[in-house]
Amino acid sequence: MKSNKSGIDRRALIASVAVLPALSGTLLATPAQAQVPSGSPSLASWNDGRAKQAIVDFVRATTEQGSPKFVPPEERIATFDQDGTMWVEHPIYSQVVYCLDRVPAVVEKNPKLRNVEPFKTVLSGNREAIAKLSLPELEKILVATLTGMSVDDFNAEANKWLTSAKDPRWKRPYTELIYQPMLEVMQYLRGNGFKTYFVTGGGQDFVRVYSQQVYGVPPEQVVGSAAGTKFGYRKDGTPFLTKEPKLLLNDDKAGKPEGIHLMIGRRPYAAFGNSDGDRQMLEYTGAGAGARLMMLVMHDDAKREYAYGPAQGLPNTKIGAFTQALYDEAKKKAWTVISMKDDWKRIFAFDA
Amino acid sequence: MKSNKSGIDRRALIASVAVLPALSGTLLATPAQAQVPSGSPSLASWNDGRAKQAIVDFVRATTEQGSPKFVPPEERIATFDQDGTMWVEHPIYSQVVYCLDRVPAVVEKNPKLRNVEPFKTVLSGNREAIAKLSLPELEKILVATLTGMSVDDFNAEANKWLTSAKDPRWKRPYTELIYQPMLEVMQYLRGNGFKTYFVTGGGQDFVRVYSQQVYGVPPEQVVGSAAGTKFGYRKDGTPFLTKEPKLLLNDDKAGKPEGIHLMIGRRPYAAFGNSDGDRQMLEYTGAGAGARLMMLVMHDDAKREYAYGPAQGLPNTKIGAFTQALYDEAKKKAWTVISMKDDWKRIFAFDA
Repeated sequence: MKSNKSGIDRRALIASVAVLPALSGTLLATPAQAQVPSGSPSLASWNDGRAKQAIVDFVRATTEQGSPKFVPPEERIATFDQDGTMWVEHPIYSQVVYCLDRVPAVVEKNPKLRNVEPFKTVLSGNREAIAKLSLPELEKILVATLTGMSVDDFNAEANKWLTSAKDPRWKRPYTELIYQPMLEVMQYLRGNGFKTYFVTGGGQDFVRVYSQQVYGVPPEQVVGSAAGTKFGYRKDGTPFLTKEPKLLLNDDKAGKPEGIHLMIGRRPYAAFGNSDGDRQMLEYTGAGAGARLMMLVMHDDAKREYAYGPAQGLPNTKIGAFTQALYDEAKKKAWTVISMKDDWKRIFAFDA
Repeated sequence: MKSNKSGIDRRALIASVAVLPALSGTLLATPAQAQVPSGSPSLASWNDGRAKQAIVDFVRATTEQGSPKFVPPEERIATFDQDGTMWVEHPIYSQVVYCLDRVPAVVEKNPKLRNVEPFKTVLSGNREAIAKLSLPELEKILVATLTGMSVDDFNAEANKWLTSAKDPRWKRPYTELIYQPMLEVMQYLRGNGFKTYFVTGGGQDFVRVYSQQVYGVPPEQVVGSAAGTKFGYRKDGTPFLTKEPKLLLNDDKAGKPEGIHLMIGRRPYAAFGNSDGDRQMLEYTGAGAGARLMMLVMHDDAKREYAYGPAQGLPNTKIGAFTQALYDEAKKKAWTVISMKDDWKRIFAFDA
């Protein structure tokens, strides 16, 4: 077991806080419409090209009766990373914004934290100071805001935030910043008998709060970094579960295939990612027999979303690091790299 | 995290080895037919009575349109203990027999173990001596036979054993010793839109080997005691997972609701068990709103199966302990106790 208690990559976390734009202003935000998938499965938001063709070819090979690479329906498993693959991860993971936004409520419940670091700095709203918090301080914030409450209380709080907080660039709820073409891939695969799973470095309980409504992925098909819970009883004898600061699964890098085995117990036939954190999942998927589909989303669209990574000759960011080594491996192993700029007609459902 | 590395309850393990009948004689056994569920969902093996009625009433309340307790299909989760609830657990858990049967192969691969305890004693076949092995010695056997190999190798070995080993009383493969009435409950629930899960103290990977074929429960719906795996590469670069002696989930007692949250993320509407190890799962299920079904299988049929537990005034055995306290709680909370003798027309599919 890894020692990182937060389940979030340490370097990515530093980077995300370093570019922190602003707390999202929960109090000012208005309730949002959930992004409910609709329409029959199609790939309408994809331009014709190698990437779209790879998806269609894979589905044909694995589902058409008589195909030499036919896969029985019960074995059709597809796994999706979330941050940067299914929704915007830049400039900071939404879940980290959630944790920072939760600090005032945590301090209100436990007022002696008001003048204790790192809570004091977060409360100050001083972005520069927040960006300089040390890792142990950031982990204190994650532990204080994600654990120590009942599962039901956590779900209620996260749900409240998700319907009110807004991304500062698009002025929309985070759950609207999902990539419409990737949602169509999920729907297309499900329409062809695949079970679609999240396999995310983000918190399993956090993603489960909205995965069904936003992506059509039920909670039991969300694999993520997971802390343990502790069973206990309230004073009236009612049993309940408390979220504990004890990491069971660090669902990133090698932890992804390990998490897939733990939670699914089958090797996926298709896997989608966007960073070095997804490399082992794609390797594990590709090592299976028959037709397999491995795809990487490349962020090369500075205008409609963001551009970062090797293909643009840009320096790697720590968030969603897509290294040259991964790019080379993808080429060598014939994984498909998706260009957001070239392959996607639109990025978001709200795009024209 | 609990310190028990094996994932098998220590006291139960002592008890199971203490009553060890004989190694199952893998070499002499012949391949068996798998027990494939067939026929449309019905409760044909149930006598009319309170238990059968409770099942039918629950399904009606949760699935009939217009019912005030209607449950949307995606929320219909039912969880089943395995040992003693779905198949025979007496006088020894099948998985422990598997581990003991595996010792010769482990020693063959690592000959220096031949004269090392506890392997030497197991190889001797001396039942009395085997029953006296200490717990640390037994854990060494479990670790040696369940970990340290690739997931693929484990699956192949377990599968081979399951198709050849036989229970000494019935002279049949262990996978035929499943309770036909309980299989019918699973099928009946699935036929009414429920997802059926195992939530077992047994090894998750072990149960997954046969759960689909024997019970119609796919691997991803098996929650069990789970060790971690470690991702790595073979010399040719192929990635693979190795089973590690590191317990992630001790899926017994309080570990059952904790495991349900980790792996499913929803509270079940129905839960089935047979022992104190299932108490917390039934409590957690019963604490939800709306119609909930909690059932306990009582082993009171010495002729057709075994009799143990409080209702017969028999001393509790360590395996499948069903204490008076659990019996009292079941009465108080209106959980349904199933009498194998009175409620079941037949125990096994092969019964007349």
